[in-house]
Amino acid sequence: MFLENINGPQDIKSLKIKDLNILASEIREALLDKMSNCGGHFGPNFGFVEATIALHYVFNSPVDKFVFDVSHQSYTHKILTGRKDAFLKPDHYGEVTGYTEPLESEHDLFTVGHTSTSVSLACGLAKARDLKGHTENVVAIIGDGSLSGGEAFEGLSCGARLESNLIVLLNDNNMAISDVNGGLYKHLQDLRNSKGTCSNNIFKAFGYDYIYEEDGNDVGAMIRVLQKVKDTDHPIVVHIHTQKGKGYQPAEKSREDWHWFPPFIKETGEKRKPMTGENYDNLVAEYLLDKMKKDPTVIALCAAVPATIAFDKAHRDEAGKQFMDVDICEQHMLSMAAGIAKNGGKPIVATFSTFFQRAYDQIAQDICINKCPVTILIRNGSVWAGNDVTHLGWFDMALFSNIPNLVFLCPTNCEEYFAMLDWSIEQNDFPVVIRIPRGKVVHANEPVEKNYSDLNKFHVVQEGEKVAVLALGDFFQIGEEVVEHLKNFSGLKPTLINPRYASGLDENLLNTLQQNHSVVVTLEDSILDGGFGQKIAGFYGRTNMKVLNYGLKKEFLDGYNVTAVLKEYGITCENIVDNILNALNRK
Amino acid sequence: MFLENINGPQDIKSLKIKDLNILASEIREALLDKMSNCGGHFGPNFGFVEATIALHYVFNSPVDKFVFDVSHQSYTHKILTGRKDAFLKPDHYGEVTGYTEPLESEHDLFTVGHTSTSVSLACGLAKARDLKGHTENVVAIIGDGSLSGGEAFEGLSCGARLESNLIVLLNDNNMAISDVNGGLYKHLQDLRNSKGTCSNNIFKAFGYDYIYEEDGNDVGAMIRVLQKVKDTDHPIVVHIHTQKGKGYQPAEKSREDWHWFPPFIKETGEKRKPMTGENYDNLVAEYLLDKMKKDPTVIALCAAVPATIAFDKAHRDEAGKQFMDVDICEQHMLSMAAGIAKNGGKPIVATFSTFFQRAYDQIAQDICINKCPVTILIRNGSVWAGNDVTHLGWFDMALFSNIPNLVFLCPTNCEEYFAMLDWSIEQNDFPVVIRIPRGKVVHANEPVEKNYSDLNKFHVVQEGEKVAVLALGDFFQIGEEVVEHLKNFSGLKPTLINPRYASGLDENLLNTLQQNHSVVVTLEDSILDGGFGQKIAGFYGRTNMKVLNYGLKKEFLDGYNVTAVLKEYGITCENIVDNILNALNRK
Repeated sequence: MFLENINGPQDIKSLKIKDLNILASEIREALLDKMSNCGGHFGPNFGFVEATIALHYVFNSPVDKFVFDVSHQSYTHKILTGRKDAFLKPDHYGEVTGYTEPLESEHDLFTVGHTSTSVSLACGLAKARDLKGHTENVVAIIGDGSLSGGEAFEGLSCGARLESNLIVLLNDNNMAISDVNGGLYKHLQDLRNSKGTCSNNIFKAFGYDYIYEEDGNDVGAMIRVLQKVKDTDHPIVVHIHTQKGKGYQPAEKSREDWHWFPPFIKETGEKRKPMTGENYDNLVAEYLLDKMKKDPTVIALCAAVPATIAFDKAHRDEAGKQFMDVDICEQHMLSMAAGIAKNGGKPIVATFSTFFQRAYDQIAQDICINKCPVTILIRNGSVWAGNDVTHLGWFDMALFSNIPNLVFLCPTNCEEYFAMLDWSIEQNDFPVVIRIPRGKVVHANEPVEKNYSDLNKFHVVQEGEKVAVLALGDFFQIGEEVVEHLKNFSGLKPTLINPRYASGLDENLLNTLQQNHSVVVTLEDSILDGGFGQKIAGFYGRTNMKVLNYGLKKEFLDGYNVTAVLKEYGITCENIVDNILNALNRK
Repeated sequence: MFLENINGPQDIKSLKIKDLNILASEIREALLDKMSNCGGHFGPNFGFVEATIALHYVFNSPVDKFVFDVSHQSYTHKILTGRKDAFLKPDHYGEVTGYTEPLESEHDLFTVGHTSTSVSLACGLAKARDLKGHTENVVAIIGDGSLSGGEAFEGLSCGARLESNLIVLLNDNNMAISDVNGGLYKHLQDLRNSKGTCSNNIFKAFGYDYIYEEDGNDVGAMIRVLQKVKDTDHPIVVHIHTQKGKGYQPAEKSREDWHWFPPFIKETGEKRKPMTGENYDNLVAEYLLDKMKKDPTVIALCAAVPATIAFDKAHRDEAGKQFMDVDICEQHMLSMAAGIAKNGGKPIVATFSTFFQRAYDQIAQDICINKCPVTILIRNGSVWAGNDVTHLGWFDMALFSNIPNLVFLCPTNCEEYFAMLDWSIEQNDFPVVIRIPRGKVVHANEPVEKNYSDLNKFHVVQEGEKVAVLALGDFFQIGEEVVEHLKNFSGLKPTLINPRYASGLDENLLNTLQQNHSVVVTLEDSILDGGFGQKIAGFYGRTNMKVLNYGLKKEFLDGYNVTAVLKEYGITCENIVDNILNALNRK
């Protein structure tokens, strides 16, 4: 076994090509073992084993600098740079993140998890190198869908004018997360079909030198092509063709499903814990497909993550022209939605919380200034969502709820979610954000409001006195628990409020509360800074009302445990009750 | 005179080419008269007169739909669509905005002021048209630098797959606001030089049909080319060559200066009120040039608005490799700055408040998660900045100050500004935003702090009792006035605090204030929602401290009067003093 002797890139430089091929097999085996246990970005990593070996064979990391776009394809890089144990030994599995991470290794330059930034980051590294008079190679590794993001073009255009070393390794596997669609990918196909010789070439058009390598999964071929470009004195694009999921049958076959895959049985590729029963993803897919049938102007848009609303291939085929996957182009998606709404269509736009922030300007300018009735569905806007530092779902609420004209809705259960969604699609006055509830489907105990046009009207779920608990969205259940607890153990009957709107205050209600309440508690599944609770505190600033805000802290956490974080932030029923009693001078 | 009879596009359709040429001259004369009085986007409009006439001659607006990118080139369009009086009659000058505005006319589809969105918006209009089974033409009008913004590429890539009518009119004048630099512009030059026939063609590469017209300032030629593409059943790019500033000598000669120009003397092109005396723009340019000379790793970056830091041609030449204008590529600029900082350079990034929001994701992910010591200089972050609804400077503080790891500084005078800037450039621990002060240069009355590493340490300018006034940045002078007024007319001696940091609280100081203060007043030149004052209110929520927040409201205003707005929002010394006395029960 070669792998057990690899403690850094220097250890592969003396190996022969045939040994490197064996090493590639060993790496795939380790990746398969680990990912079958832990899940992970399967396809991107299986497709990029040979290229990574070649990169470390030819270049001299960390002096030469690699920037992995998105960096979800960096598992082999981690294995080759002193972190093999985290892939070989189950009790060390947790020691590395799924992305490049400077805290782990000097071979990782950036914590990266969003796409399309690598060329720009590399331009910066190269520019600083030139200012300092150094000479190392700088390599941006981009592909797997990342090239469609607008910043990649900005980077390519600006990078072309560097009069020094800049190597863009374009890993072309003809896929984003889902299939690719845009004209860019037609062009890459033309380049692949012509082995890089077709007459139009956007890279050459921008001024890059260009080289094509068909056998991106052949170590020897990759070493030869990289040796050609090493120490280049000008910007060059190395376009390689690889196969996503290479070397594992199920992943080669179902490339979209296997982009990221949960723990599975190695022998069969079956998920260890298949998703069963009711869930918000499937419910919204069914709802939207039904809606589309009834109204040809309803259209759903995604940016390379159709799974956000469970639009698998069958659903996409069923929706036909009423569904668009715009590749990784969040900015375009939001502006296009504004255009659709302006011309009488009913667009529903869905992606993850963390990716919507890439289109802040389009939401603020094209949608909100223009009051275009676009429905924006935020998935994973929650502390319970993905816990990678680059994919936190804590920021969307403070970010978007402060944009004028935008209605930001936080449903607390299934029926409320679909009532809000239906209202949003059918109205013409407001841009609307709806945070998709997280976790197990919760059903309403009472009929839900159908019409949300009466903006910022909070819903009093239970009238009480002394204490009012305003619990938004996914934290509503914590609010219920607090109220229940106060009732049972202190004899208080607090008021419980579902604010529904994160983007504005029900000033009448808040004023009324002053008559027989002295403490207001706010709960939000989002950072406190800039959020809902602080608006309430601001509102009551000049009164005698005591306001206690509960929410997440303004910090970047990585790989956190939700229960521990909620405890640390004081978001537990026990602590909140305790603080309420203190505020009431009951303790 | 033809112009006085043009009340809508139908009125030009019967004119002969020679009459349309006369009309073009009349329009230029009207534009010259108005802009010499009011200022405006001179170059873009003078370059686009003939093309606009041809658009309205050939197409049938508003059934056929035009989307003007940025829309600062839409003056002729306004003249031809029933709004000529706003350009011909001085007492009507104020009746139209400088951008397309649906409230003015059904011929304007969107309020637009940021670049690079037109193709995406047009894709949306076209998609909705197709869903409804309609057949109108949709024309995106892009150019004048806008094509470099990443979203334009996203739009182009996604637009290529529309199997129906989409016309992209690329107005190529070989300029952004300043000169263009990136590989994209080299490519457009190749296309121009070859009259559209060169072998590489990014538009064809994406799948567009393509047509080139050299004489974009010739009405007849423009009519012929647009007639060819009208009612096309597939996406097509019409690449036209125009001259920025066409028809007015000074603007043809100094195209950068005349992109936007203040009121001037028609005969000479001299500004009516030349900028004289000390100003923050020139001071920072001098400071940076000096800094660059002493340290070759200092580098300033702008995105097509080098005037942000007064880097005119001479300054840029002086800075050499230590200055980069990255074209209109804010996302790239911020990521590149992260790369520069990571590799030991000292990047200073400058643009307008409203444009930084285009790079929120890059600031949050590449810069802040990675703690890259980038200095971000925000210009026009103020109610006193540009008052176009698309260029408001009220949102940056709430937007960026809530990102973890970011230090958001608000200097209150010249010396403090430069102390903060110098500290920021020389430290390695934090990403830093500095809001450039607005208006007349104010000098410090006392020595200023040199080291801002002790985060969130507010500066007590005057110790007092009962009332503490926390006045941030440009609103500090209002705070001084309030304190002075309270002292003079109520015998109070309030505490005056310059918080300096908008991104965090000085909790020690805030706790101490409770000993002998009962009212805290906050003042911020930014929206209250999500801002500084609400953080203070949240902090004091469970105490007896009364908190009064003053700042701007969460709303989009257009063409506002600052004094009226401040009065409406209660941000006047008189009102604030009144409210303080009320809160103290002194009234």
